[in-house]
Parts: sequence; structure tokens; C-alpha cells
Amino acid sequence: MKNIDTLINARWVIPVNDDRVLEQHAIAIDKGVIVDLLPSQQAIQSYKANKVQHLDSHALLPGFVNAHTHTPMNLLRGYADDLPLMIWLNQHIWPAEQKFVNEDFCHDGTLLAVTEMIRGGTTCFNDMYFFPEQSARVVKQTGIRAMIGLIVLDFPTVWGDGPDHYLEKGLQLFDEFKNEANLRLAFAPHAPYTVSDAPLERIATLSSELDVPVHMHLHETHDEIIGSLEQCSERPLQRMDNLGLLSPQMIAIHMTQLTDEEIELVSRTGTHVVHCPESNLKLASGLCPVDKLSKAGVNVAIGTDGAASNNDLDMLGEMRTAALLAKGVSGDAQALPALEALRAATLNGARALGMDDFTGSIEVGKQADVIAIDLSAPATQPCYDPISQIVYSAGRDQVTDVWVAGKQLLSGQEFTTIDKAQVAKKATDWHARISSGK
Amino acid sequence: MKNIDTLINARWVIPVNDDRVLEQHAIAIDKGVIVDLLPSQQAIQSYKANKVQHLDSHALLPGFVNAHTHTPMNLLRGYADDLPLMIWLNQHIWPAEQKFVNEDFCHDGTLLAVTEMIRGGTTCFNDMYFFPEQSARVVKQTGIRAMIGLIVLDFPTVWGDGPDHYLEKGLQLFDEFKNEANLRLAFAPHAPYTVSDAPLERIATLSSELDVPVHMHLHETHDEIIGSLEQCSERPLQRMDNLGLLSPQMIAIHMTQLTDEEIELVSRTGTHVVHCPESNLKLASGLCPVDKLSKAGVNVAIGTDGAASNNDLDMLGEMRTAALLAKGVSGDAQALPALEALRAATLNGARALGMDDFTGSIEVGKQADVIAIDLSAPATQPCYDPISQIVYSAGRDQVTDVWVAGKQLLSGQEFTTIDKAQVAKKATDWHARISSGK
Repeated sequence: MKNIDTLINARWVIPVNDDRVLEQHAIAIDKGVIVDLLPSQQAIQSYKANKVQHLDSHALLPGFVNAHTHTPMNLLRGYADDLPLMIWLNQHIWPAEQKFVNEDFCHDGTLLAVTEMIRGGTTCFNDMYFFPEQSARVVKQTGIRAMIGLIVLDFPTVWGDGPDHYLEKGLQLFDEFKNEANLRLAFAPHAPYTVSDAPLERIATLSSELDVPVHMHLHETHDEIIGSLEQCSERPLQRMDNLGLLSPQMIAIHMTQLTDEEIELVSRTGTHVVHCPESNLKLASGLCPVDKLSKAGVNVAIGTDGAASNNDLDMLGEMRTAALLAKGVSGDAQALPALEALRAATLNGARALGMDDFTGSIEVGKQADVIAIDLSAPATQPCYDPISQIVYSAGRDQVTDVWVAGKQLLSGQEFTTIDKAQVAKKATDWHARISSGK
Repeated sequence: MKNIDTLINARWVIPVNDDRVLEQHAIAIDKGVIVDLLPSQQAIQSYKANKVQHLDSHALLPGFVNAHTHTPMNLLRGYADDLPLMIWLNQHIWPAEQKFVNEDFCHDGTLLAVTEMIRGGTTCFNDMYFFPEQSARVVKQTGIRAMIGLIVLDFPTVWGDGPDHYLEKGLQLFDEFKNEANLRLAFAPHAPYTVSDAPLERIATLSSELDVPVHMHLHETHDEIIGSLEQCSERPLQRMDNLGLLSPQMIAIHMTQLTDEEIELVSRTGTHVVHCPESNLKLASGLCPVDKLSKAGVNVAIGTDGAASNNDLDMLGEMRTAALLAKGVSGDAQALPALEALRAATLNGARALGMDDFTGSIEVGKQADVIAIDLSAPATQPCYDPISQIVYSAGRDQVTDVWVAGKQLLSGQEFTTIDKAQVAKKATDWHARISSGK
């Protein structure tokens, strides 16, 4: 009998890295790491755990990786709806941000977002916003895992004077957070139409020197392509390639406008694509050719985008929309089948963030970033196939337990590191302030 | 002070028939009917109710009308996924149905479906399946409202020998259920490719004589159009028009394949369209031009389709998909804005079923078919606009209370007319039987 920290027994375990659905299996966790995955009957004889859980009607799976979001924007959820991207940004979101965004806004917004994400089974997220050190603080406080983007723009905002200043402030954070186990940083130039060549070249160099990913909106709308053609006679993707930015370090968000040649370029350079189906639909930005990208060997992950353009951070719902939309867009009902969709929402996300050596699937040696979904609800009965039920039927309210690096952040639907009442109060306070316009 | 049965006070009331969001209002209910809608402060002084409820963080709205489903198919949820319509039907669903569908299957499947629907805020559904008297029994038992379709097909099934037999059995049910307040019947010829002209002509006559709607799959896939052109040199919609079936009695389901002339025909004849976005995406059937139809004055309602092709009966999720997809398909981020989507999921459904004189909105004189959604969860905070939060953010777990004709069917998330454990046991029993193949 080996002594370990935690043994979780479940009706099903879905490792995601292969095609198996294991019945009546257990995950053995010690010091935050998955040390064994074995039948429950064997586990009882092999391990003496400080904590043993029995989840008799649940599936255990890797936590969701939300590969693109803007967490503080949770405070602007539903602030402006039913508008196209540039009107939404120019006339509503950017003015509100200029007026209200500060350190507290970013802290409180990220806390609300992380509360929503942990509740819905997300164990890791990839963020891009102002005051990244505030989002990082929330990651430390709550125990979730994240890659925090260091935003860069050509123009001044509440967070900096211009590209050099943004980069300077960003680079300081590498030292500050280098010892945080659950935290990584990335460069986050906002988009081709908001960042010019000089800072992009500097980011390409820094990314390569420091071995740090680049997180960037790319080919989000048709207008972006037209604008780029007018301005520099190139499509944005070609421009990024010329600047040396297309590589396995590039996390390209949205990618709704792609020619076959561009899909080939994305595949050849190892660029990762993050599909944000609900934001793309809601802003009528376009439709990402997920099926074509997958068939070309591109790693496609899934992100919710910010709550202001989605309007939730529900990875279960986002994965469902991705699985359904891929079929509708390709005209092939076999496109992005359930297991592939689940992989896109977990392991492919970890891969995009350069974290698949330690998270994104249930494998011995990986960090225990694990969630449990109870499939006994009427909405997921009968259960012929738990993967189908999770992808096509389950609601995020059926997520009961969440572990990150073996630490339980949600236990029987209760938070262990978050004061829900305090989160609610802060959301109410910000609502009062923002809606009064002061 | 007038004596009434029930007074429900809420943070918001959304009547849906107009553009108002009423704050701190109350709904006064007596003998199943909404008798007043007024500010809570006035209500306290005007009414003495047997039961008074205070829902301080909730929105009250009309219950969802699921305008197309096949309730017994809940027992086949996830039985076969990621397949195109005709393979899914011919090789999986129809063989399973031939083997397992009987009276008990239909009763138990409908009960599971109604459990799921009430939990998610659906107060009325439009059904099409075999053994309709079993679904009707469940409607009586549970207190939900429904229109039950009397299915007609050219070929024999477990439910009948052929079209005459189906119609004969169906017509008998009119007498049996004529006194059921919550129940209406409709003719339900399955689809243009499964019902020939003679029975369709008879249904057109009966529908007109008895003033009964016709519920039919129509223009679901491109293959349906091609098949019809090959067989009778007409597109199905034209054929239905020639047979006298296009009228305000026609509830046309799916309608993913429509020319501009056909949209004009649908509009001119007053034909109702039921949009089933998730089923259409999942089976890669095509995309319904909701925005064009709405702009042409067509009444567009929303349905989930059966759980075997969706895979849930979640009208909140279906409404969200409809609202998002309409924008993506039309390329216009202003298409199907939040309130219009909510109307499609409630009042337009009642209108399609010919029930809008007594349900589908919160209006004095209508039946009290009302639901409460708690918007205090982190996923719907902050709340700038409750309609936006309901359409774009809320999960069905946030539905706390459901009334049909003033009777409370869900109270603080607990069922009042359904034994949840019994429903679960029956689902488990059917799963064991169907997955063993015996």
C-alpha cells in the first residue's frame, strides 16, 4: 500500500489523450501530480489516500482550457449587444474601458470571471487585458491555472503610453511572477490593425529569445482583411509571416477568414488556432473553417472570448457550439465529432499554450487538473456514451468538482478558495457605478 | 382588497408582447389566469393572495414554447451521433424504433422529456411521435401544456398499418382528449418524402373542417429537395401549396432550404416556420434564413427537435443558438436581437400552435404560464439588461419556478408533480434494455 494524497473513484474516466472511456476507474494523486490511473478495485488494494472520493454517477475528465478570454470584461457582460465588431468596440466598449478600467476593475472582473470558470469546469485560461498583474494576482489567490497576456497596442490607454511602455511594463512582470507554478506569461499584441511592424518585430525577437508564446487576434473579420490590403497591400497573415511571427509560439485567435493557401501556411508553420465560435457568431465576424484546419493537421483549440461578446465563459457550451457549428459550416455531420470536440476544449488548448507536457489530459505524470461531471441529471439520461452526453447534453451546473494541480477548488459545487458573496457584491458595486456613467 | 390565489413579486417582469422590462412588479393570478400585472407596492394594497412569493433576484417571463420535438426519443439521447440525417435515420434510429418503441417506451420517454423541459422552463411543447395517447397521458399527469401530433406515414410502423390506419387511430383521440384543458391535437404528416398526395389531401381537408393545425417536417435538407424534384418535378413547398396545405394552420419545421420566392410564398400564405438550429447544425441539414423570414413578416418559432438529434430539450440553449446563428448566417450582428429571440422562443411558438390567445406572454386575461429565472448567479452578473442575460448568458439551472395555468410545477427547483427518482429508474431500465439490443 502506497501513501498518497487523494484517490478519486468515478463511474467513468475519460483521459482524452486516447480514445478510451474507462469504467469504474480511479485517479491517484500525490503532490499535485497524477501518479496512477487504474480500476477502482485495484486502487483500493494499492493506495492508502488521505482523501478518498467516490463519484458514482460522474465522469472524470481533464479540466477545460479556455484558450482565449479577456477576464476583466466580465464586468461589461451584456453592456452592449447585437452590434457588429467595430461599432461595438469604437462606440461602446472602448469608451467604457477608457472611463472605468483601473486596477480594481481588472482585479474584480477577473475574480468574477474565474468564479464563473471554476464553476463551469475550466482549470486553465489564456487571458489578454490591461493591468495583467491584477489578473495574475487573482490566479494566485484562487488556485486556477493561467497564461496571462501582456497586451501591446500602438495607442495609449489606461495601462500605458504606447508600445514601448506596454512592453517595458510587461517585461517587468516576468521577474515578479517567475516562481508562480500555475502562472505563465505571453506577449499579447492586440491585433494586426492595432499594432504596427516595429513593436511586432520586437515581440517576434523577444518571443524567440525568451521562449514565450504570442497571443494575438488574427483574421477576425472580413473588414480586417480589407483594411490590411488597403494599408499595406498584404493580408494580415502574410504580414505576420513576413515579420517572423508564424511559428508554434503563435496562438492565433479567431481566424474566420482563411484561403486554402493560408490554411496550408498555418499548418506548415505550426501556428495554433483558437476558435471562438459564439463570439464570431454574435459579432457576425465570420466562420472559422475548423474541419478544414483539423484535416490540414492544425492544432485547433477553443476559447470563449470575453464575456462582453459571448456573453459567458462557459466552455461546455462553447465546445457544444463548436461541435455543432463545424458540422453546419462544412456540411458534413461527421465533422468535429464528440471526442475531437472534447479534445479541442482540453488537450489542444494546453498544446496551444505550450502546456501539454503537464496538463490537458489525464495521464500519469501530468498535473492533476481534473473535473467531475455528474451525468445522473434527467438532461443526460439515459447515458449510452458519456462523451456524447458531455459534449451534446450536459449543462455546466452538472460540474460538481474541480481540481487544479491536485488542489480541490470546487467540492460538491462549493468553492474552496472563493467567497461567492464577496464576488457578487463587487459585481453589484461595479454595475451601479458603470450604469450611472460616473 | 381582492382575494386571489397567487401573487408573485419579482425584481423584473418581462411580458414579451411589448418591449417593456418592468422592475419590482407583481403578477396576480386567480383560477389559473393572469388577472393583473402591476408594481409590487400597489399589489400589496390591492390583493390578498392565498400564496405570496417574493423573487428578489429573478426575472418572471412567459414559459418557453418548444415548437417541435419528439418527446419519447429522449430514451434515444446519444444513441447515435455525428451522422448525416438519412444514415442516422435509416441505419440507427428507425431500426431501434422498430425494435423497442411501444406504449411504455412512449410513456416513459415523454415523462423523461417533460421532466427535462419543466426543469428548463418550458411550459408548452409541440410533439410528433408514435402512441400519441401515451404522451397525452403524461401531459395530464404532469400538468404541462402541449399540442400532440397525430403522426401519419405511408409505411407501416409499430403504431399503424398505413396512412388510413394512422388517421383513423388519430381521429379517435379527438374525442378522448376533448375535455383536457392543457392539451390540443394536431395532424402530423411526417414529411413530404414519407407521405404521398392522397393522405396529404385528406389531412388538408380535415385540418380545414376541424380547424386543427398541421405539423410537418419541411425542406429539412438539400437531399429532400433533390429527391422531390426527381420524383415529382416539384420542390416540396410547391407541392404542399398545390395540395392546399400552406396556410396559417401549417407549422412547417426546419425550412433550411428556401429561395426568395419561397420565402414570399411562406409569408403570403401565413405558414409558420419552426427553426430547430441545433438539430440542423448537428445533422448538417442546412441553415434556416431566420433573419430573411422575420423581415418578410413570417412568424418564426423555435424548437429543440428530439433529444436524439440535438441532444437536449433546452429551450434556453436553443434560443441562444438561434440568436447567435442568425447573426452568423446573415452576416448582420443586429439580426435576431435578444428580445426578438426571446419572443421567438415564447409568443411566436404560441402563435404557431394557434395558442397565442391564451398563452405565450404575460398579459392580463392569459393563462398563467410563467417561469422565474434567478439572475444572481456569477454567470449572469452584473446585470445591465435582464433580457440580454437570459438570452446570452443564463443556464437552465437558473430556472427556479414554473407555473402552467397558475399551477406551480417547479417550486424552488423542486418538482411538484413528478417523482424524479422514478423517472431516473425508468431511464436506467430502458438504457439497459436498449443497449443490450434485446
